Amino acid sequence: MMTAVERVKRAYARIAEANRPEAWIHLRPIRDAIADAEAVDTNLPLAGTVFAVKDNIDVAGIPTTAASPSYSYIPTRTATSVQRLLDAGAVLLGKTNLDQFATGLVGTRSPYGACRNAHNRNLISGGSSSGSAVVVALGIADFALGTDTAGSGRVPAALNGIVGMKATIGLVPVDGVVPACPSFDCVTAFAPTVPDVVKVMRLMTGASADDPGSRAWPSSIRLGAPPTPRVAIPTEANLAVLTPQARQRFSEAKAVLETRGVEIAELDITDFLDAAKLLYDGALVAERCASFGAHINEPDTDPTVHTITLKAGSITAHALVRDQQKIRALRTHTRRLMDGFDALLVPTAPEHPTIAEVQADPIGVNSTMGTFTNFMNLLDMAGIAVPAGTLDTGLFGVTLVTRAFDDQVGVDLAALLTDSIPGLYPDVGLDIAVFGAHMRGFPLNHQLIDCGGRFIREIATSTNYAMYALPGEIPKPAVIRNTNGVSLAGELWALPPAGLGTFLAALPRPMSLGKVELADGQWVTGFGCSEPDGDDISHYGGWRAFKAATS
Amino acid sequence: MMTAVERVKRAYARIAEANRPEAWIHLRPIRDAIADAEAVDTNLPLAGTVFAVKDNIDVAGIPTTAASPSYSYIPTRTATSVQRLLDAGAVLLGKTNLDQFATGLVGTRSPYGACRNAHNRNLISGGSSSGSAVVVALGIADFALGTDTAGSGRVPAALNGIVGMKATIGLVPVDGVVPACPSFDCVTAFAPTVPDVVKVMRLMTGASADDPGSRAWPSSIRLGAPPTPRVAIPTEANLAVLTPQARQRFSEAKAVLETRGVEIAELDITDFLDAAKLLYDGALVAERCASFGAHINEPDTDPTVHTITLKAGSITAHALVRDQQKIRALRTHTRRLMDGFDALLVPTAPEHPTIAEVQADPIGVNSTMGTFTNFMNLLDMAGIAVPAGTLDTGLFGVTLVTRAFDDQVGVDLAALLTDSIPGLYPDVGLDIAVFGAHMRGFPLNHQLIDCGGRFIREIATSTNYAMYALPGEIPKPAVIRNTNGVSLAGELWALPPAGLGTFLAALPRPMSLGKVELADGQWVTGFGCSEPDGDDISHYGGWRAFKAATS
Repeated sequence: MMTAVERVKRAYARIAEANRPEAWIHLRPIRDAIADAEAVDTNLPLAGTVFAVKDNIDVAGIPTTAASPSYSYIPTRTATSVQRLLDAGAVLLGKTNLDQFATGLVGTRSPYGACRNAHNRNLISGGSSSGSAVVVALGIADFALGTDTAGSGRVPAALNGIVGMKATIGLVPVDGVVPACPSFDCVTAFAPTVPDVVKVMRLMTGASADDPGSRAWPSSIRLGAPPTPRVAIPTEANLAVLTPQARQRFSEAKAVLETRGVEIAELDITDFLDAAKLLYDGALVAERCASFGAHINEPDTDPTVHTITLKAGSITAHALVRDQQKIRALRTHTRRLMDGFDALLVPTAPEHPTIAEVQADPIGVNSTMGTFTNFMNLLDMAGIAVPAGTLDTGLFGVTLVTRAFDDQVGVDLAALLTDSIPGLYPDVGLDIAVFGAHMRGFPLNHQLIDCGGRFIREIATSTNYAMYALPGEIPKPAVIRNTNGVSLAGELWALPPAGLGTFLAALPRPMSLGKVELADGQWVTGFGCSEPDGDDISHYGGWRAFKAATS
Repeated sequence: MMTAVERVKRAYARIAEANRPEAWIHLRPIRDAIADAEAVDTNLPLAGTVFAVKDNIDVAGIPTTAASPSYSYIPTRTATSVQRLLDAGAVLLGKTNLDQFATGLVGTRSPYGACRNAHNRNLISGGSSSGSAVVVALGIADFALGTDTAGSGRVPAALNGIVGMKATIGLVPVDGVVPACPSFDCVTAFAPTVPDVVKVMRLMTGASADDPGSRAWPSSIRLGAPPTPRVAIPTEANLAVLTPQARQRFSEAKAVLETRGVEIAELDITDFLDAAKLLYDGALVAERCASFGAHINEPDTDPTVHTITLKAGSITAHALVRDQQKIRALRTHTRRLMDGFDALLVPTAPEHPTIAEVQADPIGVNSTMGTFTNFMNLLDMAGIAVPAGTLDTGLFGVTLVTRAFDDQVGVDLAALLTDSIPGLYPDVGLDIAVFGAHMRGFPLNHQLIDCGGRFIREIATSTNYAMYALPGEIPKPAVIRNTNGVSLAGELWALPPAGLGTFLAALPRPMSLGKVELADGQWVTGFGCSEPDGDDISHYGGWRAFKAATS
């Protein structure tokens, strides 16, 4: 592990070596970054890391351009998302290039230059968070922030072979972000691996009074994917836009999930893909017009961005109302289509074009790039994009899509797919120690799953406990405090607050929940019994051992 | 208690006697209502009641006009809200008059005639749910349904001396309702008393897949007002629109709350009142245009409704986006202003005009009527309107306004103000039986309140328990199962699911929660103890008696 100062020096060396000036709009002087690094408290969770921020997110004292020099201003306040990372010990390298006003998925729509792909300078980086993805993929930054309305936090991840996470709208506050479509804009993170991206996202997450659209975790969310997750995949017809090689990569990703115990079934996602068209082809473009329309007649406006925004100026309010109502209905409809599925697996981008191809058809190619990403924010869904191999023409990735607030389910599946440790995203779990039929593999385990539970780790109590085998239909143990007792093996689970309340309300006599002392002296909420009965089985040291020995 | 058939006959006799034909757009033939009444299962919660439905809510087989004859259609499906009441045993009398397309607060904007006030035929009924309020106030119907976007479920309640409840947007599904401003439309209920209105609202509440905007109760809501509620009242300047007599009535309502233990403090609600103007004076009118704009050139369109809707046709989408963003920010801002308050008390309508006054200035008078109601749906707040005395010129009422999902808090305060039993509105409470320091008046009671708790009733256990006085800083009892024991006195509380989980997670050793047997044989979640200790105090029969005898 490098110190923060070493990491900063390494980053600037790598910047020089990589020679990708167009990735940056504002690179901080190395002395400023080193000064920050010297001041980092080494106990902070991001101490020793460096990061970059897309240049449509405010950092106090550094210009925000949104890739429009004439729009540039110097903010006096840092966006909440960025501030939380600085407070966690990360050192900022600078601000990165983007498709102007975050309007594009290609990375070429910028007066600061078309952003070239990290792995092949002739290919697009993807956008709009182009520079952020490139500096992570090149190993310059440990992570970087993007934004995502139509796919800007996912497409560049796919095209540069890294992970991009777009959480449920509102979980990460968007104050200090230049609005594109403010009803749908998200701040996202790029990192090389799933656990890295989750760590950053967790630190940025949490409702803020500075963002009226920010949302807290509901107290009834699921804290993990179930033991046998069910994932939907699009039908052949839905995937027709893919080349045979991309289609092959997609099948391989599906096969990896299957190998790891995931059940896969086809789902016709035509209605998702149709919803996507509302983002640019319907009245919603008016949000972009309201956000930066007053500015598009400046000479440094990208011609494609100019065209898109100009036509939005004449859309009527009642047309917008109708599209907004359509979206509301589609959210319910598509949620219902996902009944019985924990997530949906889609290609992130259908292809990997060259910069020349985009320049030849800037709107057409861009539109194709958003085929599988545009619907997600409209339909209030979350997504995590992971690499899924290479094509002769570039890179390919897939995205795990979940319902709003099921973010951890997507993370768990992305970790399965990439063979990594998922990392905990929501911070609302409450402990519950279980010692019997609720443990993994036993008959009541599903009750924890049904209440949104997540297995955390195996545990042992202090030596102050005894266990009895309760008589009854479903065999279960009574755990009793006994200061001349034994240490019992069990499992620690996390439940969301509402899940814990619901679990308790359904708990039959004589089971009870109170505090249990663990071997390390910590007291956690866990099982007890108000009417112990049956044989003393303490000497087995736990229910699993007792069941193994007696069955 | 009358039978359903007796109640129907009584209603039709009262209809003849009252002679208010303009209150109805479609009155069902008495034989149809009697046939329904004969089929009612007497065990149903609304058996023996009759009701009326505002004629912008669908009932299968009966025309829906929205007070526009040319708009009329015969729905094949009954709105979810109405269906739930029919399923609960209520018998429908018919469909009531309204301000056309629910656009108005006066009750005069209808080709079916201006609705005259229940108590004085020269005065307005208020609107837009005019007929529904009048038939309840005249004792024809036990309750009636209205809708409410700007105040249509509250103003007519105030002007006819009854209770009108507009719950948090989305709690009652609005499928089958002719949209006015679909982002803000609510189905509401009118009834003579607070408990009557709550009973009806509870039966109509619950998310439905047929309404994409419907919302379930969050699992962390408050189930009641705290023991000493804090209520905000507007400043003198905010109330300047009131006549001296109305101002006096408002002070009297405030004084009643104070007498009943409520703390009152002034809050400048200028920002609430300014937000209100966005509903008709801003771009949001475009929602009305999108809803029924295609229809306003029909000759039976009310001239005022025509004027309002016509001007909305030319509003641009980007202007609407800006107003929608303003509302989003104002929701956060006004929520923050209400920090430290459980509710806000406002006049429902500032005055009670005559029908002639409205006809002389249809837009001006209407606008004044909405002074204290227009903001509520825009700012995602809930309200319950109750009578608050008479004026020389008519009737006066006040509304208890709460944050979204704090509906029960408003109900509790409305019950205090009207000296009635509140009735339970949300159906998500989970039982918890407490026997010691968590009971009312004891030091840990605030923990239940902080978790959203509500006192339900005093209870006694079966005779299978013992109680010990645990040693420790805060005196508390250990309740232990003992089949040769005593009956212990305690209290039953309800907590929301997340509140119960949070309460359990914070519970210190040696307390536990499991199932406790009550005197009636029922088992409820309640307190136990994993390490009983101290003196046996079972013979006192409970903690309150023990503390009384020993202090």
